[in-house]
Amino acid sequence: MNNRIITISREFGSGGRTIGKKAAEKLGIPCYDREIIEKLALKSGFSKDYIQEESRYAPQGVLALTLADRKNGLTNQDKIWAIQHDIICQIAESEACVIVGRCADYILHDKADCLRVFIHANIEKRAERIVKEYGEQEQLPLQRLKNKDKHRAAYYQFYTDMKWGKAQNYHISLDSGEIGIEQCAEILKQLY
Amino acid sequence: MNNRIITISREFGSGGRTIGKKAAEKLGIPCYDREIIEKLALKSGFSKDYIQEESRYAPQGVLALTLADRKNGLTNQDKIWAIQHDIICQIAESEACVIVGRCADYILHDKADCLRVFIHANIEKRAERIVKEYGEQEQLPLQRLKNKDKHRAAYYQFYTDMKWGKAQNYHISLDSGEIGIEQCAEILKQLY
Repeated sequence: MNNRIITISREFGSGGRTIGKKAAEKLGIPCYDREIIEKLALKSGFSKDYIQEESRYAPQGVLALTLADRKNGLTNQDKIWAIQHDIICQIAESEACVIVGRCADYILHDKADCLRVFIHANIEKRAERIVKEYGEQEQLPLQRLKNKDKHRAAYYQFYTDMKWGKAQNYHISLDSGEIGIEQCAEILKQLY
Repeated sequence: MNNRIITISREFGSGGRTIGKKAAEKLGIPCYDREIIEKLALKSGFSKDYIQEESRYAPQGVLALTLADRKNGLTNQDKIWAIQHDIICQIAESEACVIVGRCADYILHDKADCLRVFIHANIEKRAERIVKEYGEQEQLPLQRLKNKDKHRAAYYQFYTDMKWGKAQNYHISLDSGEIGIEQCAEILKQLY
């Protein structure tokens, strides 16, 4: 694959998606995020909501995921993972772009010329951001964040066998709460 | 403390010290690295070699460090840590600067306005670099790196109770092998 790709992994509420979109705009390349879920829905037959909620956050701990559903072969998560793998490879093959989430960093690791990015922020700043972006919910913001973080880390570790948020897995990790969304996007543009 | 400080934690052989010096030059502020060891030697009575080798890499696993020497009170490492703590606070109090290593990120965490940086690179690039910088040694480069990494991580975790190399502990983490020494220094200058 000859296209240069930016992959963005991010903590929930860190603004990683916005940073990806801004960097892509500055560079004049597309940014794939929700589009991947739409492609996944089309190819897999699962609904977008199911893919967004279940496939991403389903693992209730790696051990449970390993033992619970596999007696009957592949789980839904495994099937979605396989299709997601193909979709991400096809996107990277077809054009230079930014890809947000969905373990694209791992999937493209040895296949494409990637700038691997991790975006994080402290939990208070993320709490403030999710309330502003998604509104209040029954569950308190800090609890929502802890849940999402836990599930993302478990999902990432299960499918990639790597530690989520370990600096050494990425070319650059940025604290968007400290550095700001705009400057993060600017740095990515420069590095690309 | 009103001075803006850059603290640099780094993997051995990643060029973190060179990046610190280059960023400091660009910003016209001093960079503290070996100077801290000289101050430590002066204040503690230990030799520079002892401080450099023993205090930094002594912990042979956290448990051993915890159990072995403490029956007689503070270990030499503890004494050096206490003096190092004071020296780093004094430096940060006195001027804006770059401080490389010695857990300055943790020591100044709640005391100074810091840009906390982590520099890393893949082990092959670091192996190449240490042979170029420090020459061949009896122990093979990859083995030297694994040893140093292990000891730095144990030392950091023991004294700070935080995980070394976890992206969330830093404002920015950079892969110097991918991004290059010069561009890493330039990014730090911009962020400062």
